[in-house]
Amino acid sequence: MSQRYTIIGNYISPYVRKVLACMELKGLDYEIDPITPFVGNEAFTRISPLRRIPVLIDGALVLNDSSVICQYLEDKHPQPALYPADIAQRAKARWLEEYADTYLADVLIWRLFYQLAVRKHVFRETSDEAVVQHAREVEIPAALDYLETQLPVDGFIFGALSIADISLACYFRTASFVRYAVDATRWPRTAAFVQRMQALPVFQKLARWEDGVLRIPVTEQRTTLATMGAPLTRETMGSQVPQHGLPRG
Amino acid sequence: MSQRYTIIGNYISPYVRKVLACMELKGLDYEIDPITPFVGNEAFTRISPLRRIPVLIDGALVLNDSSVICQYLEDKHPQPALYPADIAQRAKARWLEEYADTYLADVLIWRLFYQLAVRKHVFRETSDEAVVQHAREVEIPAALDYLETQLPVDGFIFGALSIADISLACYFRTASFVRYAVDATRWPRTAAFVQRMQALPVFQKLARWEDGVLRIPVTEQRTTLATMGAPLTRETMGSQVPQHGLPRG
Repeated sequence: MSQRYTIIGNYISPYVRKVLACMELKGLDYEIDPITPFVGNEAFTRISPLRRIPVLIDGALVLNDSSVICQYLEDKHPQPALYPADIAQRAKARWLEEYADTYLADVLIWRLFYQLAVRKHVFRETSDEAVVQHAREVEIPAALDYLETQLPVDGFIFGALSIADISLACYFRTASFVRYAVDATRWPRTAAFVQRMQALPVFQKLARWEDGVLRIPVTEQRTTLATMGAPLTRETMGSQVPQHGLPRG
Repeated sequence: MSQRYTIIGNYISPYVRKVLACMELKGLDYEIDPITPFVGNEAFTRISPLRRIPVLIDGALVLNDSSVICQYLEDKHPQPALYPADIAQRAKARWLEEYADTYLADVLIWRLFYQLAVRKHVFRETSDEAVVQHAREVEIPAALDYLETQLPVDGFIFGALSIADISLACYFRTASFVRYAVDATRWPRTAAFVQRMQALPVFQKLARWEDGVLRIPVTEQRTTLATMGAPLTRETMGSQVPQHGLPRG
């Protein structure tokens, strides 16, 4: 019998969302310790050498990095498959996942969401407007121009829902927390894709908990999530004091 | 019959070396266009959206990202296996590959090799001494402290040679081009591991071509490699004019 998995990481994080979506789609049993990496304690540092979320705990096995975790879940629970069966398509799906995890994360999360939300709400700092403006005017459009050549008019990228669709959708979702939306007149395929993905039951289910903790201080999120029926761990690796840093997924 | 693969990317790059090592170990037929991303022309931009090397061309299929390419080669040519058969070990190997490709690359390549070699020899700039010093005194030691807990006293990390050993070794090799060597008194396991890996026939074979183009202007490397019997493509995607940028693998 499969044992219960533990995920360390916050619902707001796109990297965590990617893993949770895979677990939900595969029907796996899990509990979550919804910390942000900024408040991880020493126990968290021991299991996440780069202080990144998510971390997956499966008995004695501790795994870091969302892409590594998703591939592990696929290897261990092959059905339903979230990676294309065709070798070339599988490679293309992994490339789009990598593109999402690096470039899309850089421009949507670290130069937009981090500046506008995390610096303000977690660290009580002001955002760097020049960084945000360059992201909005140059870097995000470059990503959207590329995605517009990769996405289908309808349905999923490789026929069935795959890790590529899931990964891309996760970053646009976190960007929406700072009211970023893709301009449908300029990038119609990407805008429609993001809407289609967000309408999927798996993302709707996660969205409820995401909306529940949005704009709530990290120290109060656990209590809120408990009242909303989120599958929380009993213990937490979160401390009360936010620490500086730019951990990635 | 398997057709000949094409690799776009320079022998000096650790990301390219990782893919070449996998191809050599699997006995695959390939040719190489040894450009650096800094001199890639418009044709290169079209096949590498982030202007990164290596790029793999397999007939109509074009693949970016060294990790995606290595996994594709493994899927297509499973023997000899370069990923552990055990699911948990395979996940651990992928994590060490990710750790090498991101954190180790950041500190050994972008804050050391790029500063000391690329800025000087490609762009005729001076290096940022503060960046180099912080890497040497803080960031690289942190990586080595972690690796020292992960590496075996002898042999390979997961019994047989895997993508984890290959990835880690590639970054230390490029760092050695600016005379960086691991202090064996402080990190004995890592220092011995790097030496063992570098002594493998596959890395010795590649080292001959790497040494051949080291400290030679990028515009002259093709001619030098031709005289050394490297499997060059007929056409090149390199231009004569270096352009600025920080492309990754």
